Amino acid sequence: MSTTLTPSGVLEASLYATDLNKAEEFYGEILGMKKIARIGERHVFFRAGSTMLLVFNPMETRKPSGNPDLPVPSHGSVGQSHICFSATAEELDAWSGHLTECGIKIEADFLWPNGARSIYLRDPADNSVEFAERRLWFDQEITSS
Amino acid sequence: MSTTLTPSGVLEASLYATDLNKAEEFYGEILGMKKIARIGERHVFFRAGSTMLLVFNPMETRKPSGNPDLPVPSHGSVGQSHICFSATAEELDAWSGHLTECGIKIEADFLWPNGARSIYLRDPADNSVEFAERRLWFDQEITSS
Repeated sequence: MSTTLTPSGVLEASLYATDLNKAEEFYGEILGMKKIARIGERHVFFRAGSTMLLVFNPMETRKPSGNPDLPVPSHGSVGQSHICFSATAEELDAWSGHLTECGIKIEADFLWPNGARSIYLRDPADNSVEFAERRLWFDQEITSS
Repeated sequence: MSTTLTPSGVLEASLYATDLNKAEEFYGEILGMKKIARIGERHVFFRAGSTMLLVFNPMETRKPSGNPDLPVPSHGSVGQSHICFSATAEELDAWSGHLTECGIKIEADFLWPNGARSIYLRDPADNSVEFAERRLWFDQEITSS
Protein backbone atom coordinates (compact mmCIF):
# COMPACT_ATOMS: atom_id res chain seq x y z
CA MET A 1 0.00 0.00 0.00
CA SER A 2 1.49 3.30 -1.01
CA THR A 3 1.21 6.56 0.86
CA THR A 4 2.30 10.13 0.46
CA LEU A 5 3.05 10.28 4.17
CA THR A 6 6.61 9.65 5.24
CA PRO A 7 8.39 10.26 8.55
CA SER A 8 10.13 13.63 8.44
CA GLY A 9 12.80 12.54 10.90
CA VAL A 10 13.76 10.48 13.92
CA LEU A 11 12.69 12.25 17.10
CA GLU A 12 13.90 9.52 19.49
CA ALA A 13 16.51 6.81 19.07
CA SER A 14 16.80 4.22 21.84
CA LEU A 15 19.42 2.13 23.53
CA TYR A 16 19.07 -0.19 26.52
CA ALA A 17 21.24 -0.45 29.60
CA THR A 18 20.59 -1.99 32.99
CA ASP A 19 23.05 0.33 34.77
CA LEU A 20 21.74 3.83 34.16
CA ASN A 21 24.39 5.45 36.32
CA LYS A 22 27.08 4.12 34.03
CA ALA A 23 25.03 5.18 31.00
CA GLU A 24 24.64 8.66 32.42
CA GLU A 25 28.35 8.95 33.07
CA PHE A 26 29.20 7.72 29.59
CA TYR A 27 26.74 9.72 27.50
CA GLY A 28 26.58 12.73 29.79
CA GLU A 29 30.18 13.11 30.89
CA ILE A 30 32.38 11.33 28.39
CA LEU A 31 30.32 12.13 25.28
CA GLY A 32 29.26 15.48 26.71
CA MET A 33 25.58 15.13 25.85
CA LYS A 34 22.98 17.28 27.56
CA LYS A 35 20.85 15.26 29.95
CA ILE A 36 17.18 16.12 29.53
CA ALA A 37 15.51 13.69 31.94
CA ARG A 38 16.30 10.91 34.38
CA ILE A 39 13.59 8.88 36.03
CA GLY A 40 15.08 6.67 38.72
CA GLU A 41 16.18 3.34 37.36
CA ARG A 42 13.78 3.47 34.39
CA HIS A 43 15.47 5.80 31.92
CA VAL A 44 17.88 8.60 31.20
CA PHE A 45 17.38 10.81 28.16
CA PHE A 46 19.87 12.97 26.28
CA ARG A 47 19.81 15.42 23.43
CA ALA A 48 21.84 14.91 20.28
CA GLY A 49 21.17 17.82 17.97
CA SER A 50 17.58 17.54 16.75
CA THR A 51 17.15 13.96 18.01
CA MET A 52 16.77 12.57 21.51
CA LEU A 53 18.78 9.58 22.67
CA LEU A 54 16.69 7.54 25.10
CA VAL A 55 18.52 5.03 27.27
CA PHE A 56 16.08 2.65 28.90
CA ASN A 57 16.48 -0.04 31.53
CA PRO A 58 14.58 -2.96 29.96
CA MET A 59 13.88 -4.43 33.39
CA GLU A 60 11.65 -1.41 34.03
CA THR A 61 10.28 -0.56 30.59
CA ARG A 62 8.92 -4.08 30.12
CA LYS A 63 6.48 -3.44 32.93
CA PRO A 64 3.06 -2.09 31.95
CA SER A 65 2.53 1.62 32.49
CA GLY A 66 0.82 2.17 35.80
CA ASN A 67 -0.48 5.59 34.76
CA PRO A 68 -3.81 5.54 32.89
CA ASP A 69 -3.15 9.09 31.65
CA LEU A 70 0.17 8.06 30.09
CA PRO A 71 -0.33 4.51 28.80
CA VAL A 72 3.15 4.21 27.32
CA PRO A 73 3.44 0.78 25.70
CA SER A 74 6.00 -1.59 27.14
CA HIS A 75 9.24 -2.45 25.37
CA GLY A 76 12.72 -3.54 26.34
CA SER A 77 15.44 -5.34 24.43
CA VAL A 78 18.56 -7.13 25.55
CA GLY A 79 21.88 -7.59 23.80
CA GLN A 80 24.07 -5.19 21.90
CA SER A 81 22.30 -2.50 19.93
CA HIS A 82 23.81 0.15 17.68
CA ILE A 83 23.74 3.89 17.31
CA CYS A 84 25.76 6.24 15.15
CA PHE A 85 26.38 9.91 15.83
CA SER A 86 27.30 12.45 13.19
CA ALA A 87 30.82 13.85 13.28
CA THR A 88 32.96 15.89 10.93
CA ALA A 89 36.38 14.67 9.84
CA GLU A 90 37.97 17.04 12.37
CA GLU A 91 35.62 15.89 15.12
CA LEU A 92 36.48 12.25 14.42
CA ASP A 93 40.11 12.99 15.16
CA ALA A 94 39.09 14.80 18.33
CA TRP A 95 36.72 12.00 19.42
CA SER A 96 39.36 9.36 18.83
CA GLY A 97 41.84 11.24 20.99
CA HIS A 98 39.34 12.11 23.68
CA LEU A 99 37.92 8.62 23.98
CA THR A 100 41.37 7.08 24.13
CA GLU A 101 42.31 9.55 26.89
CA CYS A 102 39.18 8.42 28.73
CA GLY A 103 40.37 4.82 28.55
CA ILE A 104 37.82 3.77 25.96
CA LYS A 105 39.11 1.47 23.27
CA ILE A 106 38.47 2.37 19.64
CA GLU A 107 37.24 -0.99 18.41
CA ALA A 108 37.36 -0.12 14.71
CA ASP A 109 38.41 2.86 12.61
CA PHE A 110 38.11 2.60 8.85
CA LEU A 111 36.95 4.22 5.62
CA TRP A 112 33.82 3.06 3.84
CA PRO A 113 33.91 2.56 0.04
CA ASN A 114 32.63 6.12 -0.47
CA GLY A 115 35.48 7.52 1.61
CA ALA A 116 33.52 8.35 4.76
CA ARG A 117 35.30 7.50 7.99
CA SER A 118 33.73 5.67 10.93
CA ILE A 119 35.06 4.94 14.38
CA TYR A 120 33.44 2.42 16.72
CA LEU A 121 33.52 1.89 20.45
CA ARG A 122 31.38 0.28 23.16
CA ASP A 123 29.24 2.00 25.75
CA PRO A 124 29.20 0.54 29.30
CA ALA A 125 26.27 -1.74 28.32
CA ASP A 126 28.32 -3.05 25.37
CA ASN A 127 26.18 -1.30 22.78
CA SER A 128 28.05 -0.54 19.55
CA VAL A 129 28.51 3.22 19.31
CA GLU A 130 29.73 4.69 16.05
CA PHE A 131 30.78 8.16 15.02
CA ALA A 132 30.69 8.73 11.28
CA GLU A 133 30.86 11.46 8.71
CA ARG A 134 27.43 12.41 7.41
CA ARG A 135 28.61 11.84 3.85
CA LEU A 136 28.49 8.13 4.63
CA TRP A 137 24.79 8.44 3.82
CA PHE A 138 23.91 11.96 2.87
CA ASP A 139 26.32 13.07 0.18
CA GLN A 140 26.35 9.87 -1.77
CA GLU A 141 23.56 7.42 -1.44
CA ILE A 142 24.05 3.70 -1.57
CA THR A 143 21.14 2.52 -3.66
CA SER A 144 21.84 -1.18 -3.86
CA SER A 145 18.76 -3.21 -3.18
CA MET B 1 35.70 14.02 32.61
CA SER B 2 34.30 17.04 30.80
CA THR B 3 34.65 17.79 27.15
CA THR B 4 33.66 20.48 24.70
CA LEU B 5 32.89 17.81 22.14
CA THR B 6 29.28 16.69 21.86
CA PRO B 7 27.48 14.68 19.19
CA SER B 8 25.86 17.04 16.71
CA GLY B 9 23.12 14.57 15.87
CA VAL B 10 22.06 10.98 15.40
CA LEU B 11 23.12 9.72 12.00
CA GLU B 12 21.80 6.18 12.43
CA ALA B 13 19.11 4.79 14.72
CA SER B 14 18.69 1.00 14.81
CA LEU B 15 15.98 -1.56 15.23
CA TYR B 16 16.20 -5.34 14.99
CA ALA B 17 14.00 -7.76 13.11
CA THR B 18 14.55 -11.33 12.03
CA ASP B 19 12.12 -11.05 9.09
CA LEU B 20 13.55 -8.33 6.88
CA ASN B 21 10.92 -8.80 4.20
CA LYS B 22 8.24 -7.86 6.67
CA ALA B 23 10.35 -4.96 7.91
CA GLU B 24 10.84 -3.74 4.35
CA GLU B 25 7.13 -3.91 3.66
CA PHE B 26 6.29 -2.08 6.87
CA TYR B 27 8.84 0.72 6.78
CA GLY B 28 9.08 0.99 3.02
CA GLU B 29 5.47 0.52 1.96
CA ILE B 30 3.25 1.30 4.91
CA LEU B 31 5.39 4.09 6.40
CA GLY B 32 6.53 5.19 2.94
CA MET B 33 10.21 5.49 3.84
CA LYS B 34 12.85 5.54 1.14
CA LYS B 35 14.88 2.35 1.10
CA ILE B 36 18.57 3.11 0.81
CA ALA B 37 20.13 -0.34 1.04
CA ARG B 38 19.22 -3.99 1.49
CA ILE B 39 21.84 -6.65 1.97
CA GLY B 40 20.22 -10.07 1.82
CA GLU B 41 19.05 -11.24 5.21
CA ARG B 42 21.49 -8.99 7.11
CA HIS B 43 19.92 -5.55 6.96
CA VAL B 44 17.61 -3.08 5.30
CA PHE B 45 18.23 0.65 5.67
CA PHE B 46 15.83 3.54 5.25
CA ARG B 47 16.02 7.30 5.31
CA ALA B 48 14.01 9.41 7.75
CA GLY B 49 14.84 13.03 7.09
CA SER B 50 18.42 13.65 8.17
CA THR B 51 18.71 10.32 10.03
CA MET B 52 18.99 6.77 8.76
CA LEU B 53 16.88 3.98 10.21
CA LEU B 54 18.86 0.76 10.16
CA VAL B 55 16.91 -2.47 10.58
CA PHE B 56 19.25 -5.35 11.33
CA ASN B 57 18.73 -9.08 11.59
CA PRO B 58 20.55 -9.89 14.84
CA MET B 59 21.16 -13.47 13.70
CA GLU B 60 23.48 -12.03 11.05
CA THR B 61 24.93 -8.92 12.70
CA ARG B 62 26.17 -10.94 15.66
CA LYS B 63 28.58 -12.71 13.36
CA PRO B 64 32.08 -11.21 13.06
CA SER B 65 32.72 -9.18 9.92
CA GLY B 66 34.41 -11.36 7.35
CA ASN B 67 35.83 -8.35 5.49
CA PRO B 68 39.17 -7.08 6.81
CA ASP B 69 38.65 -3.80 4.95
CA LEU B 70 35.31 -3.19 6.70
CA PRO B 71 35.72 -4.57 10.23
CA VAL B 72 32.24 -3.56 11.39
CA PRO B 73 31.87 -4.60 15.03
CA SER B 74 29.21 -7.18 15.81
CA HIS B 75 25.98 -6.31 17.57
CA GLY B 76 22.44 -7.63 17.70
CA SER B 77 19.70 -7.30 20.29
CA VAL B 78 16.50 -9.22 20.83
CA GLY B 79 13.20 -8.10 22.28
CA GLN B 80 11.11 -5.02 21.71
CA SER B 81 13.00 -1.83 21.02
CA HIS B 82 11.60 1.67 20.51
CA ILE B 83 11.80 4.42 17.95
CA CYS B 84 9.91 7.66 17.58
CA PHE B 85 9.40 9.59 14.37
CA SER B 86 8.58 13.29 14.18
CA ALA B 87 5.12 14.26 13.02
CA THR B 88 3.08 17.43 13.00
CA ALA B 89 -0.36 17.55 14.60
CA GLU B 90 -1.92 17.27 11.15
CA GLU B 91 0.35 14.38 10.21
CA LEU B 92 -0.62 12.53 13.39
CA ASP B 93 -4.24 12.56 12.30
CA ALA B 94 -3.19 11.34 8.87
CA TRP B 95 -0.94 8.61 10.28
CA SER B 96 -3.65 7.39 12.60
CA GLY B 97 -6.10 7.09 9.73
CA HIS B 98 -3.61 5.57 7.32
CA LEU B 99 -2.31 3.00 9.77
CA THR B 100 -5.81 1.97 10.77
CA GLU B 101 -6.70 1.56 7.09
CA CYS B 102 -3.64 -0.65 6.76
CA GLY B 103 -4.94 -2.86 9.56
CA ILE B 104 -2.38 -1.68 12.10
CA LYS B 105 -3.72 -1.15 15.59
CA ILE B 106 -3.01 2.14 17.31
CA GLU B 107 -1.85 0.81 20.66
CA ALA B 108 -1.89 4.16 22.45
CA ASP B 109 -2.82 7.75 21.59
CA PHE B 110 -2.48 10.38 24.29
CA LEU B 111 -1.22 13.82 25.22
CA TRP B 112 1.91 14.30 27.32
CA PRO B 113 1.85 16.81 30.19
CA ASN B 114 3.25 19.51 27.89
CA GLY B 115 0.40 18.97 25.41
CA ALA B 116 2.34 17.11 22.75
CA ARG B 117 0.51 14.17 21.22
CA SER B 118 1.97 10.71 20.66
CA ILE B 119 0.57 7.67 18.93
CA TYR B 120 2.09 4.21 19.29
CA LEU B 121 1.91 1.06 17.24
CA ARG B 122 3.98 -2.10 16.66
CA ASP B 123 6.14 -2.98 13.70
CA PRO B 124 6.06 -6.61 12.45
CA ALA B 125 8.92 -7.47 14.83
CA ASP B 126 6.90 -6.06 17.75
CA ASN B 127 9.13 -3.02 18.18
CA SER B 128 7.33 -0.05 19.73
CA VAL B 129 6.99 2.62 17.05
CA GLU B 130 5.87 6.09 18.09
CA PHE B 131 4.95 9.19 16.14
CA ALA B 132 5.11 12.37 18.19
CA GLU B 133 5.07 16.10 17.83
CA ARG B 134 8.55 17.58 18.04
CA ARG B 135 7.41 19.92 20.79
CA LEU B 136 7.38 16.89 23.06
CA TRP B 137 11.11 17.60 23.43
CA PHE B 138 12.12 20.60 21.42
CA ASP B 139 9.81 23.46 22.30
CA GLN B 140 9.68 22.84 26.01
CA GLU B 141 12.46 20.93 27.66
CA ILE B 142 11.88 18.60 30.54
CA THR B 143 14.80 19.32 32.80
CA SER B 144 13.99 17.07 35.73
CA SER B 145 16.99 15.13 36.85
